[in-house]
Amino acid sequence: MKFSFKNDYSEGCHPRILEVLAKTNLVQQNGYGLDDCCLNAEYLIQQKIKNPQAKVYFVSGGTQANLIIISAFLKPHESVVSAATGHIFTNESGAIEATGHKVHAIETQNGKIRPEDIQKIIDVHQNKPHQVKQKLVYISNSTEVGTIYSKKELVGLYQFCQEKDLYLFVDGARLGNALTAETNDLSLEDFSKYTDAFYLGGTKNGALIGEAIIINNENLQKEFGFHLKQKGAMLAKGRLLGIQFQELLKDDLYFDLAKHANQQAMKIKKAFQEIGCDFLSETFTNQIFPILSNSQIEKLSRNFDFYVWKKIDEVKSAVRLITSWTTTDEIVEKFIYEIKNLRIQ
Amino acid sequence: MKFSFKNDYSEGCHPRILEVLAKTNLVQQNGYGLDDCCLNAEYLIQQKIKNPQAKVYFVSGGTQANLIIISAFLKPHESVVSAATGHIFTNESGAIEATGHKVHAIETQNGKIRPEDIQKIIDVHQNKPHQVKQKLVYISNSTEVGTIYSKKELVGLYQFCQEKDLYLFVDGARLGNALTAETNDLSLEDFSKYTDAFYLGGTKNGALIGEAIIINNENLQKEFGFHLKQKGAMLAKGRLLGIQFQELLKDDLYFDLAKHANQQAMKIKKAFQEIGCDFLSETFTNQIFPILSNSQIEKLSRNFDFYVWKKIDEVKSAVRLITSWTTTDEIVEKFIYEIKNLRIQ
Amino acid sequence: MKFSFKNDYSEGCHPRILEVLAKTNLVQQNGYGLDDCCLNAEYLIQQKIKNPQAKVYFVSGGTQANLIIISAFLKPHESVVSAATGHIFTNESGAIEATGHKVHAIETQNGKIRPEDIQKIIDVHQNKPHQVKQKLVYISNSTEVGTIYSKKELVGLYQFCQEKDLYLFVDGARLGNALTAETNDLSLEDFSKYTDAFYLGGTKNGALIGEAIIINNENLQKEFGFHLKQKGAMLAKGRLLGIQFQELLKDDLYFDLAKHANQQAMKIKKAFQEIGCDFLSETFTNQIFPILSNSQIEKLSRNFDFYVWKKIDEVKSAVRLITSWTTTDEIVEKFIYEIKNLRIQ
Amino acid sequence: MKFSFKNDYSEGCHPRILEVLAKTNLVQQNGYGLDDCCLNAEYLIQQKIKNPQAKVYFVSGGTQANLIIISAFLKPHESVVSAATGHIFTNESGAIEATGHKVHAIETQNGKIRPEDIQKIIDVHQNKPHQVKQKLVYISNSTEVGTIYSKKELVGLYQFCQEKDLYLFVDGARLGNALTAETNDLSLEDFSKYTDAFYLGGTKNGALIGEAIIINNENLQKEFGFHLKQKGAMLAKGRLLGIQFQELLKDDLYFDLAKHANQQAMKIKKAFQEIGCDFLSETFTNQIFPILSNSQIEKLSRNFDFYVWKKIDEVKSAVRLITSWTTTDEIVEKFIYEIKNLRIQ
Repeated sequence: MKFSFKNDYSEGCHPRILEVLAKTNLVQQNGYGLDDCCLNAEYLIQQKIKNPQAKVYFVSGGTQANLIIISAFLKPHESVVSAATGHIFTNESGAIEATGHKVHAIETQNGKIRPEDIQKIIDVHQNKPHQVKQKLVYISNSTEVGTIYSKKELVGLYQFCQEKDLYLFVDGARLGNALTAETNDLSLEDFSKYTDAFYLGGTKNGALIGEAIIINNENLQKEFGFHLKQKGAMLAKGRLLGIQFQELLKDDLYFDLAKHANQQAMKIKKAFQEIGCDFLSETFTNQIFPILSNSQIEKLSRNFDFYVWKKIDEVKSAVRLITSWTTTDEIVEKFIYEIKNLRIQ
Repeated sequence: MKFSFKNDYSEGCHPRILEVLAKTNLVQQNGYGLDDCCLNAEYLIQQKIKNPQAKVYFVSGGTQANLIIISAFLKPHESVVSAATGHIFTNESGAIEATGHKVHAIETQNGKIRPEDIQKIIDVHQNKPHQVKQKLVYISNSTEVGTIYSKKELVGLYQFCQEKDLYLFVDGARLGNALTAETNDLSLEDFSKYTDAFYLGGTKNGALIGEAIIINNENLQKEFGFHLKQKGAMLAKGRLLGIQFQELLKDDLYFDLAKHANQQAMKIKKAFQEIGCDFLSETFTNQIFPILSNSQIEKLSRNFDFYVWKKIDEVKSAVRLITSWTTTDEIVEKFIYEIKNLRIQ
Repeated sequence: MKFSFKNDYSEGCHPRILEVLAKTNLVQQNGYGLDDCCLNAEYLIQQKIKNPQAKVYFVSGGTQANLIIISAFLKPHESVVSAATGHIFTNESGAIEATGHKVHAIETQNGKIRPEDIQKIIDVHQNKPHQVKQKLVYISNSTEVGTIYSKKELVGLYQFCQEKDLYLFVDGARLGNALTAETNDLSLEDFSKYTDAFYLGGTKNGALIGEAIIINNENLQKEFGFHLKQKGAMLAKGRLLGIQFQELLKDDLYFDLAKHANQQAMKIKKAFQEIGCDFLSETFTNQIFPILSNSQIEKLSRNFDFYVWKKIDEVKSAVRLITSWTTTDEIVEKFIYEIKNLRIQ
Repeated sequence: MKFSFKNDYSEGCHPRILEVLAKTNLVQQNGYGLDDCCLNAEYLIQQKIKNPQAKVYFVSGGTQANLIIISAFLKPHESVVSAATGHIFTNESGAIEATGHKVHAIETQNGKIRPEDIQKIIDVHQNKPHQVKQKLVYISNSTEVGTIYSKKELVGLYQFCQEKDLYLFVDGARLGNALTAETNDLSLEDFSKYTDAFYLGGTKNGALIGEAIIINNENLQKEFGFHLKQKGAMLAKGRLLGIQFQELLKDDLYFDLAKHANQQAMKIKKAFQEIGCDFLSETFTNQIFPILSNSQIEKLSRNFDFYVWKKIDEVKSAVRLITSWTTTDEIVEKFIYEIKNLRIQ
């Protein structure tokens, strides 16, 4: 069986999570997120982001987090601004529109959006109320193409949003990877200071399932539980989510796992650089997009699985390689060995 | 700490599930329900219901199952008929209406609906298209008040629905308890023959989370995956759901757990009967609703937790007691001992 | 051809409206409700209700008014309370649910709801956020069964709503008839003081089409235009609506027409009373519901059209008779003559 | 007061409509579109399109027609393809998304879309069910920039849609202008043969309000009335719509009015051409978009009203001029006189 670099959710969960699930298994807990583990995990997050006023809610996946947050925050006539590569725009089967809201797409170079991009969307929607009202900006960090926002960029976006009466919401399905990238200058605390809401992804970083939604804007916290329930996201055994985030966050496990994934990706990236590869985007997280010839792709595919991401021309395509907390040194070395063998072409 | 009879989802999962999660933890699997475990669990279910044409989808909870099934099956102008006690009508924060569909409620004696009840709803909606079109009948088995449908009742409902061009959908969050009740005469196979769709609850019967949706009606299977994705129910690590149902269904574990819960409830019921209690509804599953005096409730509450369900008059209320696969003989005996002490009043 | 008492929208419009349409026909006006006629009609309404802060919007029909108001005012997890006879609950093909909101129905004696009825709905929805949040009370005046609210009743409802943080919205499709009923003690001004929003029906009172929505609660006025546009209610030729309300309201025409309809109904009611008829509800507006024997119904049907409204028993049914501004004395006399002939049975 | 070329809905309606409204005013008719006039207007349309199987429904405006048709035809996971200039994408305040459906936008040169444009949208949505399913193609004729489709183009689109299992729906708010353009080679009958549904605009072509929806695809006709009612579009006095279309279509009035509007626009276009103007798009209908210098715009604005449509550079903008059935020769001559005076710059 080939090893798969297709994604960072191919395996189960970090062993410490299985241990703590076993240990707490027969303790009776309240249902629906009111258990001790969820409450404690919320407390741990409030500490880490230095914001005791923040509210934390646990859900089972990213699309669920996105659609609940956006539909809870917006009124019927309000819309969302996203990068064209944004997960909500392109990969959630119209989940946001299904809750009634338009998503405006911005074409970008690197998956990141800038104040001037948002301003252009606003500019072409001046004929209100015949045109929808822009109210929320959605960004991902790390982005769908593996890039990350700098502190300057995030603060700039937040200030712009504040001026324009827009909410800023960050999809953090891979926030761990962003925060532990070697080029990162943002802290978890910054996401509490410079966003209205964000989430911390568990599914792609060592949990069985689970994303922790953090709402900083106190006006938006009000009655959020109804939305979780109404959209089918309030698990009877909410403890399952609480236990996992408690374990991941009680020390540095969450960040150690993400950092490991990044480091393995960087080793692979370096190997591709050494054989002279170009990349679709310049990334320092756990996703890399080397551009390979068709025959190189064919060779690498013999022993490894990955997605061919984007056709560049008749003879070349970019592939996507994703590492995770489970990617061992042994696998990386074996893969790098094969990369080196691609050189002679 | 008091033992809680509040619900059947206070604990984690059956130990065999933890074992198999650990055993399979590092095996790489496809995402989004396309893993071997989901495919195998689907096969096991098709075998058990003797219907290889059925399609099986795994989701994380009951409200999610209900809202996705109903919104996928109906067109915008179609409505649902439910008992007034039905979970979708009263306990899902308007989840069905949030997808655009009206739910008609039928007042019942015992949580069960009959063809004549549905006919009455149809009769008062003859002024079409000014009135909404009834298209789907929702029932729960066991019901929210612990009762179960007989084979004659289910077949009668299904035939009526076929005649009236209505879909029949069964919420089986506690279907295991229904099928293992001493008074039950329905088989799992019957639910494949006499419904358009139903689901088999895991959350309340030994799983960490998870419900298995089974769609029998082939017209309704088409493109169902889009609805799972759009509503945020398609877990990246779908394996978590597949592994659990595989383990619960590979032998009789699923039914053994439900039967155990029922038996413990019946012992407690008998103890209440022996001290002369009346009950809110006559149940043979894992939910019982004895009517107690306020002082009896107060006494029982000292060492046990449970919900006071419905006020009967100034001095009496019905309480709800729920047992589960985790309810030990020791706990039951201790509780029965306290019930016996209630007699002298 | 038989004369029809089926409804109050069988004819076109009052001749003065045709005249003013002709007179203004070639004057160029702004589109989308920004024309002089809409602005002037808004001003006339603000004067009549003595509330210059109120905002007025014109739409083409009652279902449209109801669904836009309710969906604009509510957040996704909020619900509506209505009488079971309420137009939104029973006769709008699920229009409110189609915007995502649950409607709770109250069974009533006379189509009117009281604070204690609403309190009961709230009482059985204490398990929040598992249960939906009640936020808006919908009443009709006159009601769907022809009855009207007294000032004491309206003020009582409004005070209750204020205490419970509920909006009060009045469907005034037949508000003209309510306000000119002989037993009425409410003024148009009262609807500005004691509701959050209401509308003044044109379609059933002399206009070709049109309802005037009046929003008193300033928080709810904000950005209402978006909702009109998004729901397809913002007519390019909004002038058509403005011109009509301007004409109906520039003097007492609107109320004269409603009063005429009521008076014709009262004459017919008296005739039925004189032959000893009972009525389904006691009404003083333009709808009456006499209970007749099957043979009486058959006789009256030879020369007149009307709806058989509700079967009382095997030999009797209530019929619905509606008069309008077009119902002439001649027709009424002819009809009364036939009523008198029913006596000898 | 300045004469306005801002749009084709600034005035009331053609005098013949006022006459027939007056003539039929006191005839009693059934409500909700079941009146003789609607039935007769449907018959007239079936004759004109030579398709007795087509079903016709009358609604009050274009946004309403668009949102009802699209939401009635699509299932929750299906999406719409439109030009980026399409009315539904840019000028309906998110009305389509508010019914739950995504709209994919195609950038075009001239407001028209081609099979290859749609294919590109399909190509980038191959990751189903993570990506939404394209199901309906929306085009306008004449388009929002005044251009029209040729027969070859329409037939080509329809064949492509048939092959790809897509519905083709034509927004005909200005279909009269398209069909009477000097360069047009399409007949009304073609729209019945080569579309699943389309509508015939009244509001912008001589009616007070009203659009006639024609559904050719028999599968899509089923239960359409429910959708009209549920979205608030089923007028109690549907007669108002039926009477108007009956009058417009009983002879060639509808097309004569559109042709007049086009001819007046062409005279103005020629005058701009003679002074050497460029145009934003090449049009033969009642919309023209000459590109003028800021000072030319300023001069023309002294006596005439129109929209400055699109800034070209610091010194030039395109303006939009719309003529209608009311635009007299006198006004056109006066305007052309002023255009000629712009030359000397």
